[in-house]
Amino acid sequence: MYDVAKVRADFPILSRQVNGKPLIYLDNGASAQKPQVVIDAITQAYSMEYANVHRGLHYLSNLATEKYEAVRGTIARFLNAGDAEEIVFTSGSTEGLNLVSYAWAAPRLQPGDEIVLSVMEHHANIVPWHFLRERQGVVLKWVECDQTGALDPQAVIDAIGPKTRLVAITQMSNVTGTVVDVAAICRAARDRGVPVCVDGSQGAVHMPVDVQALGCDFYAITGHKLYGPSGSGAIYIRKERMAEMRPFIGGGDMIREVSKDTVIYADPPMKFEAGTPGIVQQIGLGVALNYLMGLGMANIAAHERAIGDYAHSRLSGLNWLNVQGNAPGKGAIFSFTLEGPAHAHDISTVLDKRGIAVRAGTHCAMPLMSHFGVNATCRASFGLYNTTEEVDALISALEFCRELFF
Amino acid sequence: MYDVAKVRADFPILSRQVNGKPLIYLDNGASAQKPQVVIDAITQAYSMEYANVHRGLHYLSNLATEKYEAVRGTIARFLNAGDAEEIVFTSGSTEGLNLVSYAWAAPRLQPGDEIVLSVMEHHANIVPWHFLRERQGVVLKWVECDQTGALDPQAVIDAIGPKTRLVAITQMSNVTGTVVDVAAICRAARDRGVPVCVDGSQGAVHMPVDVQALGCDFYAITGHKLYGPSGSGAIYIRKERMAEMRPFIGGGDMIREVSKDTVIYADPPMKFEAGTPGIVQQIGLGVALNYLMGLGMANIAAHERAIGDYAHSRLSGLNWLNVQGNAPGKGAIFSFTLEGPAHAHDISTVLDKRGIAVRAGTHCAMPLMSHFGVNATCRASFGLYNTTEEVDALISALEFCRELFF
Repeated sequence: MYDVAKVRADFPILSRQVNGKPLIYLDNGASAQKPQVVIDAITQAYSMEYANVHRGLHYLSNLATEKYEAVRGTIARFLNAGDAEEIVFTSGSTEGLNLVSYAWAAPRLQPGDEIVLSVMEHHANIVPWHFLRERQGVVLKWVECDQTGALDPQAVIDAIGPKTRLVAITQMSNVTGTVVDVAAICRAARDRGVPVCVDGSQGAVHMPVDVQALGCDFYAITGHKLYGPSGSGAIYIRKERMAEMRPFIGGGDMIREVSKDTVIYADPPMKFEAGTPGIVQQIGLGVALNYLMGLGMANIAAHERAIGDYAHSRLSGLNWLNVQGNAPGKGAIFSFTLEGPAHAHDISTVLDKRGIAVRAGTHCAMPLMSHFGVNATCRASFGLYNTTEEVDALISALEFCRELFF
Repeated sequence: MYDVAKVRADFPILSRQVNGKPLIYLDNGASAQKPQVVIDAITQAYSMEYANVHRGLHYLSNLATEKYEAVRGTIARFLNAGDAEEIVFTSGSTEGLNLVSYAWAAPRLQPGDEIVLSVMEHHANIVPWHFLRERQGVVLKWVECDQTGALDPQAVIDAIGPKTRLVAITQMSNVTGTVVDVAAICRAARDRGVPVCVDGSQGAVHMPVDVQALGCDFYAITGHKLYGPSGSGAIYIRKERMAEMRPFIGGGDMIREVSKDTVIYADPPMKFEAGTPGIVQQIGLGVALNYLMGLGMANIAAHERAIGDYAHSRLSGLNWLNVQGNAPGKGAIFSFTLEGPAHAHDISTVLDKRGIAVRAGTHCAMPLMSHFGVNATCRASFGLYNTTEEVDALISALEFCRELFF
């Protein structure tokens, strides 16, 4: 039985007040709060167990290396990767997706080659491909979602043509919560010899992920949304793809030998990890993922489904409010606008006065804003510690907004 | 008066034991320990003040943004940059130097163009330039140091020719502690219209830095060596150079507008900062730099000079030990090998049994290892909390090594 009160007690920030009201944190799509075990792990690492990793032979360096490298296995388990060596540490999804662009795509793609992506992508899964368009004439082939925010996997598959070299797709929209049938896309893409790069920034937070079952080639996650430290993250890369990649960031640790005339690079995954890494952040990410696996990703998903269903039913009752996206099976992320003069930023400010943290803006998804014909939305995004009472508070605050602005 | 006992009390890890002995941490060149104020700032940020930055309008997001953005000014003050907007946040020097390579150098340098660098550089200030050699035919022009490890600035200046497009130089060797007269190099390079990129990974830790007085174009620092969190850092970039740079990492925050067909990038420095940054790490870095400025960089340098002089005199008394590098004015970093069969790794292991943390290996500086004709060295690198008693303990342990291996 998922005990949300017990879960909430693990997160110290949830007991604080904001503007004199108990904090209601509905900005999980932007970043999630951290459980005490993660904070404690960071404190312990810096207070008693800190040193640089890999290059030392002394006790603290060995200890830090052991703790740091163990996280590779934890991430592999979390994503059900076949081998921990298919996990590359990154500072987050953005770096992970840029790694794919710079290290795999840039040296292979020719002018006129195509990348298929959806209109729902976060800028982190758009701009790295725009670089290839700007710099080497790669063509971006966009697939639309429908007005409910649903994305037909067949539309993505149909967009794959003879010049398609990559499909870049999110598993869950950070704006609408739409879940994409990535497995179906991967199956069809694989038949056509086209790799698939999945942005798992949201997906991995809200449902169990199995990269082998999905059949993807790349799967990027970001630690700060996974209840872990800022600046932590990783990307799963299928071994065959790793073998095709050149290095991205150059420096220590990713080389075997450096001379004046040549460099011999280390084997993957080290080949893609340069310099002193985010040692303590990754250790904290490992603790966060163990925390999530301890709760059970299926249990978390079930809890969020219940919260999402309840929020959906309550929001549907507000006929002066437009929710962008209502695809079947969507996650508990709700973007909305109010009819009339109230701008998303105004709403966010009013909610904040009641201690409710939501986000207002384009959510790093401008093409999707255009698709829905809006400039900005408010977004309430739920996480594993949110409750139906918090949904009620949101609804009540929105009703107050409605009164205020009309 | 610099009170090292008081300083030591600020660092919780220094009170721990290793292998039953009090920790003597002489691996500061690899990474430095963290004062309690930094650890507390991290705990506070995650426990009570956490949210994503820039994109929110709610209380916690504003608070986190304010604390995060204030660090830009702190770093500018620490480096005496003329404008906080010349500071770009990075995950460390490695990312900073790669930013220069990818965003400034790669789009400008033609085959046959030259980059001048010294044989003392860390791999982080070598491999990004090797990328340009491998990928676009740039020529690396190496400048030797002498057998004392000293680098004649005139030798660097003389290496600048009509095809030189960049000088990449460290301010302090991480192997020998050699200090480079960067200001002299910058003056001459500027006369010839050649920008200078300074690796300040060590320099900024051990002496006051004034990027305006140095006259450099780029100056990279790394937080984890500056007593700050892992995964933190920044690079100073002169405004004219920033204006010449294209983006490096693509994603959220570094754009003004994204559509299906185009991207309009944000103005610098945001243009070079993609995705959710290392929020809490950078906040911690700000606290670390304020801690250093509170002690006074000149005071820290004076303390380390005294320790270094003492260590130098004691090490000089061991006639079976070779110290690599002995340039006048060098920092308190000592690399050494023992005559006879004892490998650097063996020495490090023996010292570790006495609680003394030193590093053994190539120190990410293989060209310098070749220069000195060694495969690996032991390195004792001192920081602001080290004492003459710790020097004595090192000497005594080395004498024990000598007995053990002969």
